[in-house]
Amino acid sequence: MKKHEIAVIPGDGIGKEVVPPALEVLHTIAEVHGGLSFEFTEFPWSCDYYLEHGEMMPEDGIETLQNFEAIFLGAVGNPSIVPDHVSLWGLLLKIRRNFEQSINIRPAQYFKGLRSPLTNPNDFDLIVVRENSEGEYSEIGGRIHRNENEMAIQNAVFTRKGCESAMRYAFDLAERRNKHLTSATKSNGIFHTMPFWDSVFDVVKNDYPKVETNSSHIDALAAFFVSQPEKFDVIVASNLFGDILTDIGGAVMGSIGIAPAANINLNGQYPSMFEPVHGSAPDIYGKGIANPVGQIWTAKMMLDHFNEEELGEKLLDVIQEVIADDIKTADIGGKCTTDEVSTEICNRLRALK
Amino acid sequence: MKKHEIAVIPGDGIGKEVVPPALEVLHTIAEVHGGLSFEFTEFPWSCDYYLEHGEMMPEDGIETLQNFEAIFLGAVGNPSIVPDHVSLWGLLLKIRRNFEQSINIRPAQYFKGLRSPLTNPNDFDLIVVRENSEGEYSEIGGRIHRNENEMAIQNAVFTRKGCESAMRYAFDLAERRNKHLTSATKSNGIFHTMPFWDSVFDVVKNDYPKVETNSSHIDALAAFFVSQPEKFDVIVASNLFGDILTDIGGAVMGSIGIAPAANINLNGQYPSMFEPVHGSAPDIYGKGIANPVGQIWTAKMMLDHFNEEELGEKLLDVIQEVIADDIKTADIGGKCTTDEVSTEICNRLRALK
Ligand SMILES: CC(C)[C@H](C(=O)O)[C@@H](O)C(=O)O
Ligand SMILES: CC(C)[C@H](C(=O)O)[C@@H](O)C(=O)O
Repeated sequence: MKKHEIAVIPGDGIGKEVVPPALEVLHTIAEVHGGLSFEFTEFPWSCDYYLEHGEMMPEDGIETLQNFEAIFLGAVGNPSIVPDHVSLWGLLLKIRRNFEQSINIRPAQYFKGLRSPLTNPNDFDLIVVRENSEGEYSEIGGRIHRNENEMAIQNAVFTRKGCESAMRYAFDLAERRNKHLTSATKSNGIFHTMPFWDSVFDVVKNDYPKVETNSSHIDALAAFFVSQPEKFDVIVASNLFGDILTDIGGAVMGSIGIAPAANINLNGQYPSMFEPVHGSAPDIYGKGIANPVGQIWTAKMMLDHFNEEELGEKLLDVIQEVIADDIKTADIGGKCTTDEVSTEICNRLRALK
Repeated sequence: MKKHEIAVIPGDGIGKEVVPPALEVLHTIAEVHGGLSFEFTEFPWSCDYYLEHGEMMPEDGIETLQNFEAIFLGAVGNPSIVPDHVSLWGLLLKIRRNFEQSINIRPAQYFKGLRSPLTNPNDFDLIVVRENSEGEYSEIGGRIHRNENEMAIQNAVFTRKGCESAMRYAFDLAERRNKHLTSATKSNGIFHTMPFWDSVFDVVKNDYPKVETNSSHIDALAAFFVSQPEKFDVIVASNLFGDILTDIGGAVMGSIGIAPAANINLNGQYPSMFEPVHGSAPDIYGKGIANPVGQIWTAKMMLDHFNEEELGEKLLDVIQEVIADDIKTADIGGKCTTDEVSTEICNRLRALK
């Protein structure tokens, strides 16, 4: 019996509504599969927790999480009670950083039954590999107070190691897929780091002669994601560019509400974290209408990470069937509640037994 | 007789193909209008110029341009012969900076007859006001060489003055339009400059009680540009965010090839510059198929700047009619050459006489 010990952080808003059904799906998979079990330990760290304790997680929070094999997270943030940079840097980004989750992987693909805003979404199937530990997201910088001459500086920090590790991961993935890798750059406008990024890419690509490559400036690339997503296979991007591209990926699929993500610790020293792309959506929280598919597809990425790719594939097939059969929430044009969708997914998984 | 003295820089690639027809359109407008004339002085500054002279423009280039009322530019860049950061910072960005063109304005709107990739493009009509002089585009930063420990740093610099001036311009515009302004932020991830941007926005908005506002993180906002562009009126964004959003704006219109831009010097001390959003597209250069509409719509923005809004409106009407009548280049689903499109626009302008 393989047992996986998982830390669960539902977080804020709809995170609290979509995590429980996703856990149910995972339990169902264990039940169907037999030799597999999950043990979930829940932590209430969130903006509400902050209001009570003055911090997003306890001081020994990172230490506590370290003992788990993986972290399964809902969504963090509720700007009406805690400023975003406080809540995110105090929890989500803190975990990504402390556990050296240096890669963020996010697929986007065409789903039958999803109302893509695109006239001709074709059969796109792409995956963005995002550098997840440095780049435009850094704590270096600050503000100088001079009244009307006030200014703020933000340092973007790109290391050769950080760029290279994201790029190699992306090349490996491209080799296993359709052997095409696009590098997201902006070396025409961003003067120091982006020409550096390009130069690292030019060196790394020599080790992958089988993979065709191209580079595209982030502005043009964002436009291409809309006009021809089917042209892409794997894309490697810096932290911010990956952040933007993956939301566009969600939009062209038809909803950010279904997009999953994995934050991977590559050296295996720390837990990896699995969280959907969508946020906490405080505006629809409490209505039972949040789309659980992002969180459930994220569970599939966790299964892959546990080397249960076959189970993962089965789960993704079921998700796709359920959507194609119109069992879906309002954000993707359906009439179902959160629970109706997840219950149907569980039922179909059980039927596979 | 009002005479406008304009410096013309066709630049690289298709810039050289779309600028001449746009000048012809401007001459035609002068001819139709009567009391108006244009004097164009052309400068060959470009990547080819660089190959010959080792610089993108002569040392006294900025001084030379200073005497003109406006600059009309095609496109800059040809990475196969000059690295982009060299060509852009040596010409386009140098002009934007030296002439304190601190605002970049870029409209995007639904055009009948344009093949938008969106199923339901509705009747969107938005305008992005981009901070154009600082932010993520700065020369501050550099590289530290340590072999595998090598790194590069890029400083994003946000001043209160810079942010405020872009925001006030955007609020003024929103007041004249539909009284809604969206601020593009990323204060959940970018730690120093984006919370600063938000705080400036919060102060400035108090002076515009009639304008409704909201803030949206750039990742979500990029997705909303795809899923519901009709929800936006005016958007104010930092230099990089504005760059990305306006290319998405071009994509949802149906082609980046038609999108125009104005780089405005607000204090009136220096010339403003007018250039389309698209680049030099070296891959299609020389075939006579480049879309001239971006450059011609850009000419319309220059007319507005000369307080010839009425003529500008007429020109935009003609552009829209011509596209609706299927007289268009291949990139937007037509079969016409560059010259056929611009000749038709000139003919229809003459018919208005
Ligand atoms: C060419 C490049 C430097 C430029 C920019 O990023 O500003 C372009 O993309 C634009 O939008 O005008
Ligand atoms: C919430 C925010 C800090 C985060 C990010 O920008 O990384 C989110 O947008 C994401 O993509 O996971």
